[in-house]
Amino acid sequence: MDVVTRIEQALNGAIGRAETANSPPKLASALRYAVFPGGARVRPQLCLAVAGACGDDTPALSDAAAAAIELLHCASLVHDDLPCFDDADLRRGKPTVHAIHGEALAVLVGDGLIVMAFEALAMAGAAEPQRLPALTTTIARAVGAPRGLVAGQAWESEPDPVLSEYQRAKTGGLFTAATVSGAVAAGADPGPWRGLGDHLGEAYQIADDLRDALCTAEELGKPVGQDEALGRPNAVEEFGVDGALGRLQQTLNAAVDSIPDCPGAAELQQLVLLQGKRLTPKQLAAVSVA
Amino acid sequence: MDVVTRIEQALNGAIGRAETANSPPKLASALRYAVFPGGARVRPQLCLAVAGACGDDTPALSDAAAAAIELLHCASLVHDDLPCFDDADLRRGKPTVHAIHGEALAVLVGDGLIVMAFEALAMAGAAEPQRLPALTTTIARAVGAPRGLVAGQAWESEPDPVLSEYQRAKTGGLFTAATVSGAVAAGADPGPWRGLGDHLGEAYQIADDLRDALCTAEELGKPVGQDEALGRPNAVEEFGVDGALGRLQQTLNAAVDSIPDCPGAAELQQLVLLQGKRLTPKQLAAVSVA
Repeated sequence: MDVVTRIEQALNGAIGRAETANSPPKLASALRYAVFPGGARVRPQLCLAVAGACGDDTPALSDAAAAAIELLHCASLVHDDLPCFDDADLRRGKPTVHAIHGEALAVLVGDGLIVMAFEALAMAGAAEPQRLPALTTTIARAVGAPRGLVAGQAWESEPDPVLSEYQRAKTGGLFTAATVSGAVAAGADPGPWRGLGDHLGEAYQIADDLRDALCTAEELGKPVGQDEALGRPNAVEEFGVDGALGRLQQTLNAAVDSIPDCPGAAELQQLVLLQGKRLTPKQLAAVSVA
Repeated sequence: MDVVTRIEQALNGAIGRAETANSPPKLASALRYAVFPGGARVRPQLCLAVAGACGDDTPALSDAAAAAIELLHCASLVHDDLPCFDDADLRRGKPTVHAIHGEALAVLVGDGLIVMAFEALAMAGAAEPQRLPALTTTIARAVGAPRGLVAGQAWESEPDPVLSEYQRAKTGGLFTAATVSGAVAAGADPGPWRGLGDHLGEAYQIADDLRDALCTAEELGKPVGQDEALGRPNAVEEFGVDGALGRLQQTLNAAVDSIPDCPGAAELQQLVLLQGKRLTPKQLAAVSVA
């Protein structure tokens, strides 16, 4: 089965468990709305690519890790869009969860997706329980306090956030967790895979800042100019467009270079190059990623 | 070490991990504020009481289960108090998290506490990984969709909620998880302990409805009359004060009767009786729990 199908099936399985005869119907519908149709699913793809490079001896567990990471990412988007944060009406080209279902359900959808992520991990972990503690703590640390997604969001409430700490927490953590958890789910040493996640996370954040500054809302399917409007620390403000672009190239190159020698190395390099292309704003497409 | 100290130490350990030099300071402070000083800590006490009755051969794991349950309970209170839900200014006799720290941080505190709960479980689970899948899914199901806390809250957005389903999800689930997880953490069969959690959860919900209808805000440390004001389904509306009181007695009696024959049975009966007394509104103190 191809990676994209595996990811969608794992996500569908998790969301489906919340759609029983006894579910509150609006919540069930809003949970599905928040996850389908998805974005690029780049984090779960990365997770499964690394699991594959490490032998992927327990596919159900790597699928669960990939799905958990995507569910947590979706949860963060739903809460991030709330009026008390970005107050965004548009996400992936359609109305945000709170715009459709109201704030209360949007808070609950985020909460429900977080819980669902850890439930999916635990269920699949029954097959290889000795891998579950490291797998769960890896993913939990990427999304919690003091250095995960929640901390990243919280830096936006601080008067003087450190850009590197903010970006690592808000974006980098989940990329690092994607590569590390892919290895752990396959029973491999995650050490050699950490660098790939670190570099990709940094690249993704820089690209996101560039796109926020340079793209139209139509191109992104969400509001733009949010960093400047909300006074959030960002790479374009700190380094300028050219400086940010240079850093994007450097980090993508570092990501490619960090891939360990393994059977799936060529596919992984392709995945990184493809992401690099996808992330670069069209008006800057001259940027070469190599 | 006594049970109360074990619970506070486990909670303090979890919150302390979010208070590193790199934490966003407001988030770290708000996380602690949401958990300390606590309420009656009735769910974690119940969890440890059952673990004790089952031999408690891995105290660090039962402590983690107890702490996880309390962290998830605290998370639900923080989100429940938000303006888009109860819009409550007071909780445990002090300003709510959003009243002090703002809505954005309150959303993040809830998210962070949910993640922290599963991280604490996973860390302690390394000692007995084969218990971790069942322990985690038990607790996740009690707080997620379709039948946990999140679903319970979501029923409040439905036009025609079923009282029993709503109460089970909103309150009962976490009580049942407390007894079941206490047994699972100790490596015991959780089956005989499910009834105790079920009955106590129902009793607690009825008592909560009675207190909301009959107590003053000063007595409870939080706003009262919320059920009626927000048109929420509740036992007082459904059965009247006398009817609700009768059901409270029945369920407390059923809880006492359900305790399996075991070394700690007498202490557990005492805990139930004490809770029954604590939960009954003072003006109804004539109610006898036996």
